[in-house]
Amino acid sequence: MELSPTHIAVVGGGSWATAIVKILSENNVIVHWWLRSQEDIKHIKEFGHNPSYLSAVQIDGEKVKPTSNLRDAIKNSEYIVLVVPSAFISDALKTMKPEDFTGKKVVNAIKGMVLSENSLVTSFVHNKFQVPNENLLVIAGPCHAEEVALERQSYLTIAGQTHEAAAPFASLLACRYVKTITNEDVIGVQFCAVHKNIVAIACGIARGLNYGDNYQSVLVSNAMQEAKRFTDAAHALDMRDMNASAYLGDLLVTAYSQFSRNRTFGNMIGRGYTVKSAQMEMNMIAEGYYAVKGVHEINKKYKTEMPIVKAVYNILYERISPAIEMRILKDKLR
Amino acid sequence: MELSPTHIAVVGGGSWATAIVKILSENNVIVHWWLRSQEDIKHIKEFGHNPSYLSAVQIDGEKVKPTSNLRDAIKNSEYIVLVVPSAFISDALKTMKPEDFTGKKVVNAIKGMVLSENSLVTSFVHNKFQVPNENLLVIAGPCHAEEVALERQSYLTIAGQTHEAAAPFASLLACRYVKTITNEDVIGVQFCAVHKNIVAIACGIARGLNYGDNYQSVLVSNAMQEAKRFTDAAHALDMRDMNASAYLGDLLVTAYSQFSRNRTFGNMIGRGYTVKSAQMEMNMIAEGYYAVKGVHEINKKYKTEMPIVKAVYNILYERISPAIEMRILKDKLR
Repeated sequence: MELSPTHIAVVGGGSWATAIVKILSENNVIVHWWLRSQEDIKHIKEFGHNPSYLSAVQIDGEKVKPTSNLRDAIKNSEYIVLVVPSAFISDALKTMKPEDFTGKKVVNAIKGMVLSENSLVTSFVHNKFQVPNENLLVIAGPCHAEEVALERQSYLTIAGQTHEAAAPFASLLACRYVKTITNEDVIGVQFCAVHKNIVAIACGIARGLNYGDNYQSVLVSNAMQEAKRFTDAAHALDMRDMNASAYLGDLLVTAYSQFSRNRTFGNMIGRGYTVKSAQMEMNMIAEGYYAVKGVHEINKKYKTEMPIVKAVYNILYERISPAIEMRILKDKLR
Repeated sequence: MELSPTHIAVVGGGSWATAIVKILSENNVIVHWWLRSQEDIKHIKEFGHNPSYLSAVQIDGEKVKPTSNLRDAIKNSEYIVLVVPSAFISDALKTMKPEDFTGKKVVNAIKGMVLSENSLVTSFVHNKFQVPNENLLVIAGPCHAEEVALERQSYLTIAGQTHEAAAPFASLLACRYVKTITNEDVIGVQFCAVHKNIVAIACGIARGLNYGDNYQSVLVSNAMQEAKRFTDAAHALDMRDMNASAYLGDLLVTAYSQFSRNRTFGNMIGRGYTVKSAQMEMNMIAEGYYAVKGVHEINKKYKTEMPIVKAVYNILYERISPAIEMRILKDKLR
């Protein structure tokens, strides 16, 4: 007897959304895939490929239902996976009401904060739509979407209030080339996912200023110490192992990637571009640009020592010269 | 009034030795530099460059005295820095006697084990030459010699029995482009320096088998967990912060370097070369090749879970197929 499939809404049409749709559709799942672009929806229905992102990925039309009706996608689903850029999350959900989420599990796959509220995505969903904590999950872990498209072995961590709460969704995301792990650190994994984008900008700035591999390895080591200090202050948790792949691995895959948008943005800043001109040249805004403002703000409460966040904040928002800030940072690292 | 200079013997003529000589001679130091090759000594004396390694580095003839007489170099020095490949350390010191080391401080800058004894270098020196623990130091930390030659900002950790024991030498190694830190974990930093070469081989093998960045980030995260389990078992120490640059940074600079000899060796193994043919093709033997045998042997005593060491050992010494071992390892990582 075949079990009836699990219905899952995926909210977002970018590369990480496309990768998640691909993984889910390897399992006994029906995906209600909400995309903003009508053209992309039409193309996916007609040709079985997302024309805008990871367009080599074959979309299984039997299991994946693209739609522009968010309310319907959510209504029909047990899980709602949020995977739009963090800057658009408020807007994407603006017509939704708490009733729409009643009895649903909401999964955050966004590696950024909600700007308007300066909060983590799960806190935003909890506050705005009254989704209880036991129904909130996070997809974390080191994962370039491009490598999922190539079916290269990857690992994802699903965080929930308990391992038991995370396990069913973790099994829906596991497949031949993805191994999933559960963890109970909803706050910590989200924070580290936000922080790593700031670190990637710092790595890019250092590279742009001609610092080398020796320096970057020390910068990344200090970033882990900084992340630990902050997560310990914001949400202490004995079981948190910062060397688990959801924390250290996630930082490494971003900080050491030549393809990281945050790193590229930082590199331009290091080479002397202004924030505006770097953003125009890249035709996009790196997540870390917002993240550093949010974390800098939140840390006013915790007052932990965050020299890397401070340096990136000063460079991007206080217009202090990257060379000067990096020289100050250099003396603080160890 | 100028203080009289500190006399330091540097034992070894490779790239890391040359980098250390360069750094030391930025300070008030006389370096008695022992090299095996008479030709290199002659060239350095005549032209102020090591012809074989980092040959762009200018050697200051006022401060650096190349010599082929090891006993004299040691006799005239307060510190003896050991920096030959680990395979040659026994041989290099074979004519030395405990009396030669009386009252001397011995600094290990070798990132490998003494094969014949299967021990860390400081333990070997302690046992063979009766150098007391308070006179044993280690140079650790993430440092490509090539970047020191370019005077790119780098960080070194000097480990000693106490911070106070390490501090004087740390200050002799600090200069405009090198910052030094002290630490009290002589055993732990040496072990991690050995282990990281094994991990770099594993990263190379994975890359040779077409695993990607996602996988490598998880492999390195698990390597940190493995190193922590082992060092906790072999030498528990509350103050040990695995995210300090001497541990995590040292691993990163090796595992993520395209220039790492251990990684290159692993890559060839992953692509199907035999150990013999990879060694012949590279015309050298990667430190990690010996290290994995030593650590595998020592861990028989501690029995900690070391899946990465086990995989590399099985591939290099038990001739198990890299593809099979990597598939087994893949399932153990998380």
